[in-house]
Amino acid sequence: MPYATSTLWAAIQYLGPREEAPEHRHSQNAFRFVLEGEGVWTVVDGDPVAMRRGDLVLTPGWRFHGHRNATDTPMVWLDGLDIPFAHHTDTGFFEFGPDEVSVEDTPELSRSERLWAHPGLRPLSEIGSLTHSPIAAYRWEHTDRALSEQLKLESEGHPATRGPGHAAVRYVNPATGGDVMPTLRAEFHRLRSGGRTAERREVGSAVWQVFAGEGRLTLNGVETRVGRGDLFVVPSWTALRLEAETELDLFRFADTPIFERLSLDRVSEEGR
Amino acid sequence: MPYATSTLWAAIQYLGPREEAPEHRHSQNAFRFVLEGEGVWTVVDGDPVAMRRGDLVLTPGWRFHGHRNATDTPMVWLDGLDIPFAHHTDTGFFEFGPDEVSVEDTPELSRSERLWAHPGLRPLSEIGSLTHSPIAAYRWEHTDRALSEQLKLESEGHPATRGPGHAAVRYVNPATGGDVMPTLRAEFHRLRSGGRTAERREVGSAVWQVFAGEGRLTLNGVETRVGRGDLFVVPSWTALRLEAETELDLFRFADTPIFERLSLDRVSEEGR
Amino acid sequence: MPYATSTLWAAIQYLGPREEAPEHRHSQNAFRFVLEGEGVWTVVDGDPVAMRRGDLVLTPGWRFHGHRNATDTPMVWLDGLDIPFAHHTDTGFFEFGPDEVSVEDTPELSRSERLWAHPGLRPLSEIGSLTHSPIAAYRWEHTDRALSEQLKLESEGHPATRGPGHAAVRYVNPATGGDVMPTLRAEFHRLRSGGRTAERREVGSAVWQVFAGEGRLTLNGVETRVGRGDLFVVPSWTALRLEAETELDLFRFADTPIFERLSLDRVSEEGR
Amino acid sequence: MPYATSTLWAAIQYLGPREEAPEHRHSQNAFRFVLEGEGVWTVVDGDPVAMRRGDLVLTPGWRFHGHRNATDTPMVWLDGLDIPFAHHTDTGFFEFGPDEVSVEDTPELSRSERLWAHPGLRPLSEIGSLTHSPIAAYRWEHTDRALSEQLKLESEGHPATRGPGHAAVRYVNPATGGDVMPTLRAEFHRLRSGGRTAERREVGSAVWQVFAGEGRLTLNGVETRVGRGDLFVVPSWTALRLEAETELDLFRFADTPIFERLSLDRVSEEGR
Repeated sequence: MPYATSTLWAAIQYLGPREEAPEHRHSQNAFRFVLEGEGVWTVVDGDPVAMRRGDLVLTPGWRFHGHRNATDTPMVWLDGLDIPFAHHTDTGFFEFGPDEVSVEDTPELSRSERLWAHPGLRPLSEIGSLTHSPIAAYRWEHTDRALSEQLKLESEGHPATRGPGHAAVRYVNPATGGDVMPTLRAEFHRLRSGGRTAERREVGSAVWQVFAGEGRLTLNGVETRVGRGDLFVVPSWTALRLEAETELDLFRFADTPIFERLSLDRVSEEGR
Repeated sequence: MPYATSTLWAAIQYLGPREEAPEHRHSQNAFRFVLEGEGVWTVVDGDPVAMRRGDLVLTPGWRFHGHRNATDTPMVWLDGLDIPFAHHTDTGFFEFGPDEVSVEDTPELSRSERLWAHPGLRPLSEIGSLTHSPIAAYRWEHTDRALSEQLKLESEGHPATRGPGHAAVRYVNPATGGDVMPTLRAEFHRLRSGGRTAERREVGSAVWQVFAGEGRLTLNGVETRVGRGDLFVVPSWTALRLEAETELDLFRFADTPIFERLSLDRVSEEGR
Repeated sequence: MPYATSTLWAAIQYLGPREEAPEHRHSQNAFRFVLEGEGVWTVVDGDPVAMRRGDLVLTPGWRFHGHRNATDTPMVWLDGLDIPFAHHTDTGFFEFGPDEVSVEDTPELSRSERLWAHPGLRPLSEIGSLTHSPIAAYRWEHTDRALSEQLKLESEGHPATRGPGHAAVRYVNPATGGDVMPTLRAEFHRLRSGGRTAERREVGSAVWQVFAGEGRLTLNGVETRVGRGDLFVVPSWTALRLEAETELDLFRFADTPIFERLSLDRVSEEGR
Repeated sequence: MPYATSTLWAAIQYLGPREEAPEHRHSQNAFRFVLEGEGVWTVVDGDPVAMRRGDLVLTPGWRFHGHRNATDTPMVWLDGLDIPFAHHTDTGFFEFGPDEVSVEDTPELSRSERLWAHPGLRPLSEIGSLTHSPIAAYRWEHTDRALSEQLKLESEGHPATRGPGHAAVRYVNPATGGDVMPTLRAEFHRLRSGGRTAERREVGSAVWQVFAGEGRLTLNGVETRVGRGDLFVVPSWTALRLEAETELDLFRFADTPIFERLSLDRVSEEGR
């Protein structure tokens, strides 16, 4: 099966100029992490979402979505889904939406962001728990700033980083503080040049994308050099260490929420 | 007793030029909502927090805090606490901190904001549930923008407001999506000129502060005109209606989280 | 105010022969712990509940209840409620029910017990969370057996007791494993003759009833002898130690769930 | 693969006279539902658990367990596990325990039951949430009584059954009111002679065992007659209807907790 891991699908999707995809929905949870390009949008339940390099765009389970490249240049994104999990557990549902994607123009920000992407604030019109994040797009400028601030705070002598020289954020559902979708965890990691992480194993698999920079990764003792654009997979309970040769920016997604919710999670980390 | 309601303390605090208060902590949950002035800071567990009109500054239970007016002009804020609740339930604890408030300068943003006030992101260094919000200051610019966007979305024909012409946000704990502190709810409401809310009763009491604008409120059928700077109290199960004569901005805090957590909450709203 | 503590009401209620009380309901949570007598019933939402010494009978908030003594002998019970809490927080509601208590005969077990009081089983007709326990009566025979088994297990060398010679159970909501009602905790403690508890303080108050046996209690260093029928109160943050001169059986209720749900709970125990 | 469904393992295990299995543990959740025999025990973390027809015996993930047939007659049980789920998601761990099963005699009740199997009571020595049920054995006598009472209550005109003539209980974790283990749901159903269930589909698969009686089942429109000892599987989203020709007793287990915890659950039931 063309699966990245036993639970995760990861694919580099290349969207040609003027290409579009009709609206549909499926029970599988999905996201797009934009690698190159600008001027494409995804429409999620009627809300057009502009896409730019570094943005994380969610299309949670059972929400209608489609996309169109309104430009003459291509776009490249990383598609992440829980397709293998849905396949193994017989939980897949699919439906086509209206034939035509009905969006005229694409505003800078989606309506979901205008409603929800204010730090520490939520609209009174949507009080109540939400199983999936209501934010359609997590913008690169916020991710980048959050990581920069962690490294600055560390330089100023304050606790802020995941480990020495290792800034990291998790994308979360603002209505719960938990993962963006019930089966998928998404994070962004930044290592200072020369930094290295502790060796870590965990139950569940992950896919990493090297967004910028160069470094080395060690998987169960085997070292590999990686650079911008590389994608690598960490299977369940495989020991991972990362080392940065330049400042190293990495997007990561994983199936860990499945195992945490089922009390099947385990972690073993050097020095903990 | 000099209490605003049976559970809430509300006081206008006037801080003279160069005035300061030594650090201390108490089990009571508290916040300050800044009404006038600039250039004062509150220090919360060693983190200096600049204060400006419209900012909500939290000092959750059992965190050391003190403040100093570093300027030659006064500041005015609304102090909100659950003192009466702690008094009636015998749960108060108090401790003095170090004699001197040890802050040199006050950066634009507190460390807590640099770590936590990024929309939809949380630091991997602080994963896990938090009973109180880790954000020390909720800035006016974010509140103002969130409210403006709700009204714009409504004008564009999209669901976003609490009711027609009535934008509202709740300040939340980004680690849970719930209230900022276990006993206190904080919200900000904006009514378009001419807007009016449905009549509503709820178990639990609230204090409202007219931040800007003019309007009328009706409490159990008795109407009163209010304007900038007014403070009013809504006791438990009292019917409230608001009407705006100009655009009307209101800060509100309430004890509702207590009753929701104890399954004692009730609401009755006209038309629902 | 005739309150046992700042949050709890405790009263010994004496029900004369043939006496009855009309059905009513209130938002306050309440229970009855039977001290003497037999042949009286409480009806809870139409379900007649027989009462016998040692039984805990719940009348959770907003459920209709009334009672009738169908015999020629009196009954005595301990009435426990959160009346002072409801009073201080302005959350009280009250309503009378139908004039006549409409029960003909009183079966051995209430319908609620026939549906819910099977260990580790719940009816599929009532799946979903329940804020208050659906069990109307917790029978003495089960409480007694659970305590006896703890002491036997301890004698056999297995961990089972709260402390050496100190068996204890908490009455719980079978739909959650948590307290029977959101504001009230109910427990039963049994100390072996000669046993003594560690000194313990906690936020929140408690009322204890000496159900059988004799012993000594120390409250903030002051010792008192107690025996069958005695009632004593432990205010918030007061240090309590118990010592048994004979086997000592004690019923206890407390307001701790309030403070645990509001993250205001604190405990200090000797040796922990 | 020899799997019952994509997530569930179901096997009839026949244990010969004097046969025994050494202690081991695995991350997979497991149970045994006893079909025939008596005098065998399973030891779970050192606690010997007697087994008799109709008992449900849990061996939750990562607890050491082994068994021995101390008699000269065989035993037959239904083994249920989440082996396929653990396989597909790469979450399996395994460890052998001490070579010899170290139990001398088998008391009527396990220690876990003496501590936990009292209706509505929990030991103060084990307060706190528990991810897996602490009750090692759910005895047939309780299951049988709970089902009988539901049918009697229905005959008396009170709501108690899952549907007309259809009594049903779920085995639950007394510390949470939720499923016995995070990945497995266990239930027992009893239909009156002549009773029939509504047609129902749900996401997730189930295995049913006909414990007693005779009837018919319809799966996606295909009818089959079943009787004592039959085992049948209901794959995900397959429509099931049951009809009883005699009183019909059925044990059922399913993977539904996985999908409920991941917000992937769906149900479609005739008339709802």
